[in-house]
Amino acid sequence: MALLFERAAIAGVGLIGGSLALAAKQAGLIGEAVGVGRGRANLELACQRGILDRFTHDPIEAVRGADLVVLAAPVRALGPLLRACAAGLEPGAVVTDAGSVKQSVVRDVEAVLPSGVSFVGGHPIAGGEQAGAAHADAGLFRGARCVLTPSARSTPAAVAKVRALWEGVGMRVSEMDPARHDALLARVSHVPHVVAFALVNAIAAADADAAAYAGGSLNDLTRIAASPVDVWRDIFLANRSAVGLALAELRNACDDFAAALAAGDEARLGELIEAARAQKARWSDEPGE
Amino acid sequence: MALLFERAAIAGVGLIGGSLALAAKQAGLIGEAVGVGRGRANLELACQRGILDRFTHDPIEAVRGADLVVLAAPVRALGPLLRACAAGLEPGAVVTDAGSVKQSVVRDVEAVLPSGVSFVGGHPIAGGEQAGAAHADAGLFRGARCVLTPSARSTPAAVAKVRALWEGVGMRVSEMDPARHDALLARVSHVPHVVAFALVNAIAAADADAAAYAGGSLNDLTRIAASPVDVWRDIFLANRSAVGLALAELRNACDDFAAALAAGDEARLGELIEAARAQKARWSDEPGE
Repeated sequence: MALLFERAAIAGVGLIGGSLALAAKQAGLIGEAVGVGRGRANLELACQRGILDRFTHDPIEAVRGADLVVLAAPVRALGPLLRACAAGLEPGAVVTDAGSVKQSVVRDVEAVLPSGVSFVGGHPIAGGEQAGAAHADAGLFRGARCVLTPSARSTPAAVAKVRALWEGVGMRVSEMDPARHDALLARVSHVPHVVAFALVNAIAAADADAAAYAGGSLNDLTRIAASPVDVWRDIFLANRSAVGLALAELRNACDDFAAALAAGDEARLGELIEAARAQKARWSDEPGE
Repeated sequence: MALLFERAAIAGVGLIGGSLALAAKQAGLIGEAVGVGRGRANLELACQRGILDRFTHDPIEAVRGADLVVLAAPVRALGPLLRACAAGLEPGAVVTDAGSVKQSVVRDVEAVLPSGVSFVGGHPIAGGEQAGAAHADAGLFRGARCVLTPSARSTPAAVAKVRALWEGVGMRVSEMDPARHDALLARVSHVPHVVAFALVNAIAAADADAAAYAGGSLNDLTRIAASPVDVWRDIFLANRSAVGLALAELRNACDDFAAALAAGDEARLGELIEAARAQKARWSDEPGE
């Protein structure tokens, strides 16, 4: 594929930043990958694995000469991270991010974005509970969706290049409003994480030995409870109102079950289960899954 | 392994009943397997797959001459099922079940159990969202736990033989009180199923297109929403009070998150996530998982 960017600065070389650098280098989409972060061992490992060509601990140095800057840290760190490197940003550079929340990120990043530099908010919907460059995987993004949220500081040319980058590593790219993204992701990702954490906490509080008797269902529902604390605390706080709303929606749906159970209403309980089963079957048949 | 039972009657040749017959025959634990059920195509398939030696639609005929009767139908059907075959039960026969709820099953089955016949309540904690003999798998039980709930009508000899049967197909067998079983399973299995169904219903009600943007987390949490309706409606109703209690426990744990979010309490949110993450890591390290 054609080279899109001569030099990419990857600010935060974790699962997402590391996988993107690896995949984009392998696909010939970026020339050089320069990492910046705090953990020396992680950055050294990233160089050994061919994820990075070099690294620095200095954000200004990292972005100097880069025509692409990828912000791949916990979402509430992205504004401060861009401010820390702003003095080194080249005119014409494209800044993008991989954060799971978009309204607050667009606001925070645009507030400190130098003139002459574009920002394109992005969210590759991929990843998992693992963290660090050790788990970076060039195939992580293949077939998954990526949402871009063009905003006031996104030039059409920058949007096109960021789209080509994610498509080039195998993603199916959509564009939408940041608020729409945040409402969607609260429902399909953020609240499922709250539930996974809460389910573990509820069981631990009620009966510490219970998990020994779990079958596949509990393991499935709590796999993501192993996710990094800082990442998810930030996502929940940065998307507070949408997460709160989606959590209330889930509570209502659970209350429907609780009410049918309390009433011993067999027909209603059957309807609630059948509705979910049929909907799940439709989701599984759709290419979106 | 030594033959435990000359002839097993399998009442309900679905995923669990079919897998048990297959595994027990392959391991030489049972001589002949006779199936009884309503669906002719399913029973014929079970014969073709070597799960059954023969089948009948007559419950009395099915249990005649059987020294083991396995009740493997939805839990609220087990009492009526045993009543339907009671006239054919041999003195000295052992009846067991594979239901996910034990208090109501023990009560319902013992109420119609002829004298001279033993009952040992059992719950192999294995299976999945698939149904029918087509999915029967001799390896389904290997390494998983089985709970037996000996009761007034369980002779020590019957308990020992049922234990040997499940151990013989690879399960780790524990014995406990039916009430303890039901409280445990409400937390680690029944409520996770409620949550999976409710999560699908909540998303479908709020935004039918949202699932197209789901990553692995939603797919994990809702896999079991494809489970059979009759099986789960019965489990929820048969274990109403324990499921209601465990659902309230989960609601409290979700409310902890909602309150921390509403207050923007970063420290508290971090604590809640960290507690879950650490607990999940302990579960994953334990052989019980």
